[in-house]
Amino acid sequence: MSERLEELTAKANNKGVDAAVAAARRVIASLLHAGDGSDAEMTEVADRLNAVADYLDEHAPGVEERMIDMWRGEGVTRHDPVTGPENAIAPPLPLTGKDDGSIEGVVVLGMPYQGPPGFVHGGVSALLLDHTLGVANAWGGPSGMTAELTLRYHRPTPLFEPLTVTGRQISVDGRKIRTTGTISAGGELCVSAEGLFIAKHLPRPR
Amino acid sequence: MSERLEELTAKANNKGVDAAVAAARRVIASLLHAGDGSDAEMTEVADRLNAVADYLDEHAPGVEERMIDMWRGEGVTRHDPVTGPENAIAPPLPLTGKDDGSIEGVVVLGMPYQGPPGFVHGGVSALLLDHTLGVANAWGGPSGMTAELTLRYHRPTPLFEPLTVTGRQISVDGRKIRTTGTISAGGELCVSAEGLFIAKHLPRPR
Repeated sequence: MSERLEELTAKANNKGVDAAVAAARRVIASLLHAGDGSDAEMTEVADRLNAVADYLDEHAPGVEERMIDMWRGEGVTRHDPVTGPENAIAPPLPLTGKDDGSIEGVVVLGMPYQGPPGFVHGGVSALLLDHTLGVANAWGGPSGMTAELTLRYHRPTPLFEPLTVTGRQISVDGRKIRTTGTISAGGELCVSAEGLFIAKHLPRPR
Repeated sequence: MSERLEELTAKANNKGVDAAVAAARRVIASLLHAGDGSDAEMTEVADRLNAVADYLDEHAPGVEERMIDMWRGEGVTRHDPVTGPENAIAPPLPLTGKDDGSIEGVVVLGMPYQGPPGFVHGGVSALLLDHTLGVANAWGGPSGMTAELTLRYHRPTPLFEPLTVTGRQISVDGRKIRTTGTISAGGELCVSAEGLFIAKHLPRPR
């Protein structure tokens, strides 16, 4: 019997806005790689990027309309800062649901996510784990909003290497949901997380 | 006697790479505002952004050389994902040290930082607070690396409104440093954080 696997995060289309966002991610990393010592004409770069932003703004719906559109349906989000193919801040982290109720994803983080020299920012690990625990709830049982999140940092999390991110719902007691997660590199535990979630949701705009 | 205030985070130059990064932040937000329903020519946008990334890559130093350069000196970082003027992922959050040993900053977060509909992603609050606690250590006494971080979410943190972020070193016991922080909106506490830090640092590349 083959294991059931299910994609729990939005897949990039490689066209439309997703392709433009993928290119924007390249720009974010390239700006940081170039830095202030570069002989690139940064004023010209700024002009070119501002022109793109101006063009997009001319073709964007109003914020309210866009908010209703982005929250339409009940499926996975396409805009969040961890997995979203429409959000250039997202690495993005793809997450897959497994038969045993847990979820998992692999991601490589580059320079924009740096904290200590050569390692991932502790707050970025917190961002990834908070989101992963939320997705683990959606996969494993009832889901809700984060009430409390505790992160333990076991060893520095490396940049530029595949990181395995996991999440699993542990228990449900009335409206209280407990969920755990980890980030590992090369089989070694880097960060672990425990979250307490409350089974409630904010209304979607409509 | 006037209160002593000190800027603890890098100030954007409004020229050079900082101006280009500010424009890249506009692009990130504009892509998300436009979304897939926009009639913008996204293939053309992707081409324009990829061309900018190609140009920057041609004028970037090697990763090793750049890492040495970005960690030169002992001052504030310009590349981190919370305060860095060279990092388009950073909102950025400016932080100021106060006479009483605490630090504070105000930031408005837009759509790229969204979690629940209309509110800040809980993991983004964790990212901001982890970094703020680190800067509070640098201001208040010995600093170190995060060993444990606990976040409590008291109420949803609004997008598009000024958020006050605070941090304060509470105690130092040998190498153990305890630090707290908060995010508030309109005078109401949204998120609080407690961190345990260990007084050690990873070596800077050279």
